[in-house]
Amino acid sequence: MSELFERHRDLLGRAVQATQERTYWSAFSEVPSGKIYGERAKAEGASAFEARLGKPFNLANHPAEAPVGNEVSPYGRRLGITYPAASITTLINASQAASSVWAAAAPEGRVGVCLEALVRLNNLSFEIANAVMHTTGQAFAMAFQAGGPHAQERGLEAVAYAYSEMKKVPSTAVWSKPQGKGEPIVLEKKWRIVPKGVSVVVGCNTFPTWNSYPGLFASLACGNTVIVKPHPSAILPLAMTVDIIRQVLAEQGLPEDAILLAPDAAGSEITRDLLKHPAVAIIDYTGSTAFGEWVRNNAQADLYTEEAGINSIVMGSTDDFVGMCDNLAFSLSLYSGQMCTSPQNIFIPSSGIETNEGSKTFDELADGVAAAVDRLLADSVRAAGVCGAIANPATLDRVSNARKLGRLVRDSAVIEGQGDARTATPLIVAVETDACDTYGEERFGPISFVIPVDDVRDGINRAAALASKKGAITAALYSTDDDVMNFAADQFARAGVNLSVNLMGGIFVNQSAAFSDFHVTGANPAGNASLTDAAFVANRFRVAMWRKPFQEAAE
Amino acid sequence: MSELFERHRDLLGRAVQATQERTYWSAFSEVPSGKIYGERAKAEGASAFEARLGKPFNLANHPAEAPVGNEVSPYGRRLGITYPAASITTLINASQAASSVWAAAAPEGRVGVCLEALVRLNNLSFEIANAVMHTTGQAFAMAFQAGGPHAQERGLEAVAYAYSEMKKVPSTAVWSKPQGKGEPIVLEKKWRIVPKGVSVVVGCNTFPTWNSYPGLFASLACGNTVIVKPHPSAILPLAMTVDIIRQVLAEQGLPEDAILLAPDAAGSEITRDLLKHPAVAIIDYTGSTAFGEWVRNNAQADLYTEEAGINSIVMGSTDDFVGMCDNLAFSLSLYSGQMCTSPQNIFIPSSGIETNEGSKTFDELADGVAAAVDRLLADSVRAAGVCGAIANPATLDRVSNARKLGRLVRDSAVIEGQGDARTATPLIVAVETDACDTYGEERFGPISFVIPVDDVRDGINRAAALASKKGAITAALYSTDDDVMNFAADQFARAGVNLSVNLMGGIFVNQSAAFSDFHVTGANPAGNASLTDAAFVANRFRVAMWRKPFQEAAE
Repeated sequence: MSELFERHRDLLGRAVQATQERTYWSAFSEVPSGKIYGERAKAEGASAFEARLGKPFNLANHPAEAPVGNEVSPYGRRLGITYPAASITTLINASQAASSVWAAAAPEGRVGVCLEALVRLNNLSFEIANAVMHTTGQAFAMAFQAGGPHAQERGLEAVAYAYSEMKKVPSTAVWSKPQGKGEPIVLEKKWRIVPKGVSVVVGCNTFPTWNSYPGLFASLACGNTVIVKPHPSAILPLAMTVDIIRQVLAEQGLPEDAILLAPDAAGSEITRDLLKHPAVAIIDYTGSTAFGEWVRNNAQADLYTEEAGINSIVMGSTDDFVGMCDNLAFSLSLYSGQMCTSPQNIFIPSSGIETNEGSKTFDELADGVAAAVDRLLADSVRAAGVCGAIANPATLDRVSNARKLGRLVRDSAVIEGQGDARTATPLIVAVETDACDTYGEERFGPISFVIPVDDVRDGINRAAALASKKGAITAALYSTDDDVMNFAADQFARAGVNLSVNLMGGIFVNQSAAFSDFHVTGANPAGNASLTDAAFVANRFRVAMWRKPFQEAAE
Repeated sequence: MSELFERHRDLLGRAVQATQERTYWSAFSEVPSGKIYGERAKAEGASAFEARLGKPFNLANHPAEAPVGNEVSPYGRRLGITYPAASITTLINASQAASSVWAAAAPEGRVGVCLEALVRLNNLSFEIANAVMHTTGQAFAMAFQAGGPHAQERGLEAVAYAYSEMKKVPSTAVWSKPQGKGEPIVLEKKWRIVPKGVSVVVGCNTFPTWNSYPGLFASLACGNTVIVKPHPSAILPLAMTVDIIRQVLAEQGLPEDAILLAPDAAGSEITRDLLKHPAVAIIDYTGSTAFGEWVRNNAQADLYTEEAGINSIVMGSTDDFVGMCDNLAFSLSLYSGQMCTSPQNIFIPSSGIETNEGSKTFDELADGVAAAVDRLLADSVRAAGVCGAIANPATLDRVSNARKLGRLVRDSAVIEGQGDARTATPLIVAVETDACDTYGEERFGPISFVIPVDDVRDGINRAAALASKKGAITAALYSTDDDVMNFAADQFARAGVNLSVNLMGGIFVNQSAAFSDFHVTGANPAGNASLTDAAFVANRFRVAMWRKPFQEAAE
């Protein structure tokens, strides 16, 4: 088993270094290029995906009592794939039966399995891109990046932390306590990593791999057995993931059931019963605040959550008006605002702001962003490539209703020529400052509000207060004033929000880079943990010791 | 503020090294010697303690609405000290008002305050020893060690972990992402430590400082404000602690209310209301399982617990019969079995075991331990020095009732010549193997059971199963057989119990050494966390970032 560890030792070492430095580092190329992934990789990925459609998904030796599966692509097609499902009792029993051997595989053995699985998943990135695209509605390029290499890097990051945390505990030490003039008391102590138990990962519809891999691989590396509960609309990417890990486990003579899939059907979800099972020791949850609240109130297990938030942009001043508007337009449009990092509220001083093009009024600024969205999405092919499709039909209803919430600055529209795809471009609505009920709720999807405020500091205060109360994962500020930047840095840090200032060009507030950005702070209602840091991993195992007089060990 | 950090930099560095190596290291001498602490330290400590009696405890500038305090020494004296008490609203408001400045004091500033306070507490160890002795009933020598230097070392260990965890996060990084042939995207990123909020430490009656210091100092170092809720019977040692920390804070121009005392009166405890307050973000709880269950079910905050457990000894074989019996006798007698690490159940093969004195029957082994206790406690002065006094009168009732639970092997008795002190030497009762209801409950105090089992492995299995179900912090095995040792190591590790094998002489299963032993595994019902490891500290703060284009930073 340590063969896999040796094979990937350099990768792990570099990843550990990256978690400490948090400068730029990438393990897996985000470019869907034939030169990197092989000239036939794209075509093979597409055909492998096609070959899965309309059939049962084969998870070798997996508990299977009744098939489930009813995924429909946001691009229109019914996937027609069924997955092996089993009762919670069957799954928990299988998971626990795998526990002892998996726990005994030693940190290096387990980390080796995780690293090998991640590298194999990386090789499958094109097929995974198709699977992610047709379950989430992400455009292909994003599905490749976020669903493939970026997700794999988040998983690798978690494995690096897990390895570091486990290795922090020495496996043995000689403890020699002086006794004045007498002989010292000398004990030999041995420590071992003890897993916490069954770990359940609850996946979401929009980022089934990216949001699941950190918890999944962290728990697995630390010796826990893992049950993956995918969203009923996005099972395939996680089924492929579970399949690959089980293959690696089987090849190593380790129990495949160390990882299990717990698919269910919309309307008869098993999540509540699964999470309440007393054997469940760790829960990673990504999803709505409504269900998150149930989990927080009902789970006895350790809980790591990412729930909803309301992300804000605050305008103060800029020396690049067009660059600012273009950057925001992309952030609003990317995956039609369906990212946990997408901005919703744009706070603009009611008297306008100073720019390189002179003073701009509130309306000019709102219209400037709207015009930039129009420019970005003028070409429907490009629009489809940026916006993708809408994962959940309810989002379209939400867009319709949001139109009535204020003055329309930019209307949402379908993207032309996209066949049966469910599409919607950004809706921008102007509301009054005191319309807190309108912009103070998360309205998931391509829905944004422009909100007048007294000045930039008022905007910062309102955005930060909303983050403290309702949660937020990102915030963005445009300002040329260092004092304002520092004020914003203080206020958003207190509210537990990661802040981006003056982003222009090809970097966006929505983006969170593995090995550098801690995703979610865990310091406001948007989530209680961060992907991925030491605290996310350190409590996924415990340590047990035995000690005895040293003399006996020397016998 | 970094002056204090610089002053104690070497101490911190050595402590960090010790947490990694976990070999023997001591920061503060456990020897109550005039040569180390000053020839007048003992007398001064005693008179300082005496001077506190019968008066209000002066906590300068502390919120004070009504005095409380009704401590009675287990050695007989009424302390007559009152402490400033305030409503929960007052305390939370004061704590939150101190939060911003304390959080802004930077890790080095906060760690410096903690280190200075620990060193000052160390200098007060003789006075603290008196305070601990007369609130817990510990004999003076133990009160000095466990209440003074050992507790201070546990606090230092927590500060070392806190510092390591905080410094793991870089404060700044330049992130440069290649863009093919284009210019890279370069961002400057800045991270800061964000505290979680108000941290409440709930102290216990028996180890008010030792069990409280890790959570108290870890939370404080990570930037949280701390409210210390002492047990109504053991306020003084924690009031002194809070006083010292507030003095250091005041000298540094930092808000004293970063640490507050929340004393209450028996029968009108404020604990439930305090722990349920929504501002409370972290709870460290040491106490009964009954109240622990309430806390687990009602607290919304992060929770670190040490609750009750049932610790076991298993006999298999020994090459030093007398040494084994003497060692166990001391473990049973020390502080009259009122340690969370004290053994309760002694599993002995019904057919006896092999020893260096030949085969010994079950009865000979049980009587051997009883005789060793008699030897140890034959001299009443020595007996008082080992057993101390009984903290809680209810423990005496428990001893009385336990006499009837089986066949008396050794009766409990008062220690002669101890005046009004509440004393009780170890009770040893033989029960049947199937009397699980008897020995399967924690019976806190000097109460032990000898229980016949099929053989040593049966004993190990029963002890480990009981630990998994009811919790245990320690286990001890006597065996000359490596296979049995390894079997026990496996079984107790799975049950989350730290195991001591073949302890003889001056080292005992009850003892847990800072910087080497992780106290409690957090892997069974005896507690959900360990004192002190990375997981105990890593989630006491969060991290917030702001990032901006690097060019602007260079302006």
